[in-house]
Amino acid sequence: MFQGFSKDYLVSRSGECRTFCRVIVVTGRSESDVEMAVQPVYARWLNSSPTVFTSILASLGKVELHLSTIGANVEASEQALTSAVAAISDVLGASLVSTDGSPIEVVVGRLLKERDAYLAVAESCTGGLTSSRLTDVPGSSDYLHSGWVAYSDEAKIKALGIDCRLIKKYGAVSKEVAEAMAMSAYELAGVQYALGITGIAGPVGGSAEKPVGMVWIALVGQNSLRQTRLLRLSGERADIKYQASQEALDLLRRALLQCV
Amino acid sequence: MFQGFSKDYLVSRSGECRTFCRVIVVTGRSESDVEMAVQPVYARWLNSSPTVFTSILASLGKVELHLSTIGANVEASEQALTSAVAAISDVLGASLVSTDGSPIEVVVGRLLKERDAYLAVAESCTGGLTSSRLTDVPGSSDYLHSGWVAYSDEAKIKALGIDCRLIKKYGAVSKEVAEAMAMSAYELAGVQYALGITGIAGPVGGSAEKPVGMVWIALVGQNSLRQTRLLRLSGERADIKYQASQEALDLLRRALLQCV
Repeated sequence: MFQGFSKDYLVSRSGECRTFCRVIVVTGRSESDVEMAVQPVYARWLNSSPTVFTSILASLGKVELHLSTIGANVEASEQALTSAVAAISDVLGASLVSTDGSPIEVVVGRLLKERDAYLAVAESCTGGLTSSRLTDVPGSSDYLHSGWVAYSDEAKIKALGIDCRLIKKYGAVSKEVAEAMAMSAYELAGVQYALGITGIAGPVGGSAEKPVGMVWIALVGQNSLRQTRLLRLSGERADIKYQASQEALDLLRRALLQCV
Repeated sequence: MFQGFSKDYLVSRSGECRTFCRVIVVTGRSESDVEMAVQPVYARWLNSSPTVFTSILASLGKVELHLSTIGANVEASEQALTSAVAAISDVLGASLVSTDGSPIEVVVGRLLKERDAYLAVAESCTGGLTSSRLTDVPGSSDYLHSGWVAYSDEAKIKALGIDCRLIKKYGAVSKEVAEAMAMSAYELAGVQYALGITGIAGPVGGSAEKPVGMVWIALVGQNSLRQTRLLRLSGERADIKYQASQEALDLLRRALLQCV
């Protein structure tokens, strides 16, 4: 109905003016941090012709910049947007995920596929969310090999072959166990990259030393790639799960871009 | 602010009248099917005093019945709602998931915990979504043991130990492979129940014989419990993933209630 009737009617009422949009996705930085970085840049396009408007929209684990311009001249509008996107991208550096609105799971998938690489994921506190987000993308069988949800200590020992003495010595939520989870997934699956995620999603189970929201993520990859990151997240259980999966995907994304 | 200021103001304006609500969650039946079953029942409460209003809200994989009544008499209102909920529950039988609005992942968790039972999940097309939904519930470490995301054939063979001849003979999306996935998870984890899910989430990868949306789910459990279900789902990739995880959780829920 929209294509057949409404669209022509709306176009005839709008003159030739159209709205042109681009969406820039950023991760790993706060809304105010992104605003401080990009404000001097987008301010230039507020006084240009055609004017490019920029809105900042923060949501869990990411910040989006929505750029738009209204005009009758398609070429001039697209050109202005392309220039603004390029200038903003420049100041964002490695925190820039995409300039076409793609979420990080799509971008990570593209990067893996371009490198003919496969990924395995070993998850504890995220409980399969990272694998599930990756498999939300059509064609993800081209780069996601396998995943383990090692939720209990016993699962970490039985399914992933983690040394029980390691868990006893450092605790299930530790750099050492995150690394061991990633390494086990890497070796068991025989892939190019593997992620390990272990943490305390809450609302209970935290301690003074290891509070709710503490999450260790580890990345293991070909050419002796070994990285870990300690997160101290806040929010509800679902928020912590989501942010932890986001950070794990971002650790991999940055490694794939070789700009860590 | 609401507790401290707005609430008292609103109470003073409303007289003593309050709205009382209950939410009934149903799964495995269409909205029109639920409507046909419950309409004769809830119609009785439309002419009663206090009047109980029923709204039907369908969303992906479930139907919710929202019952409400407005009154100043707390006891009479709660009593009317309790009677209406009981009468509606009677006609819904095993498709009734909860009368307190709890989603199926919470109900399955409660049933497992009451039976001191642990669950393992082996997922292909759902990609970890079933495990992730189960771990959205606080305390899920009390009953979720482990999960496998065996997305590729190689992952099914390597991580779950599925016989490659089985996949070759019946295909990765088959009753036999779903059963083998559940059985492997059951045995590897050493738990009381295990689910296996394999299907075609789309948008590509379907064939005339095995179209997009075809999903096999299998349940294996103690006391020789063996069940499979063939699903023919429609919708986008994410919809198919969600519905498949919903049906798998429902298969388990009904088995736990022993009313299959």
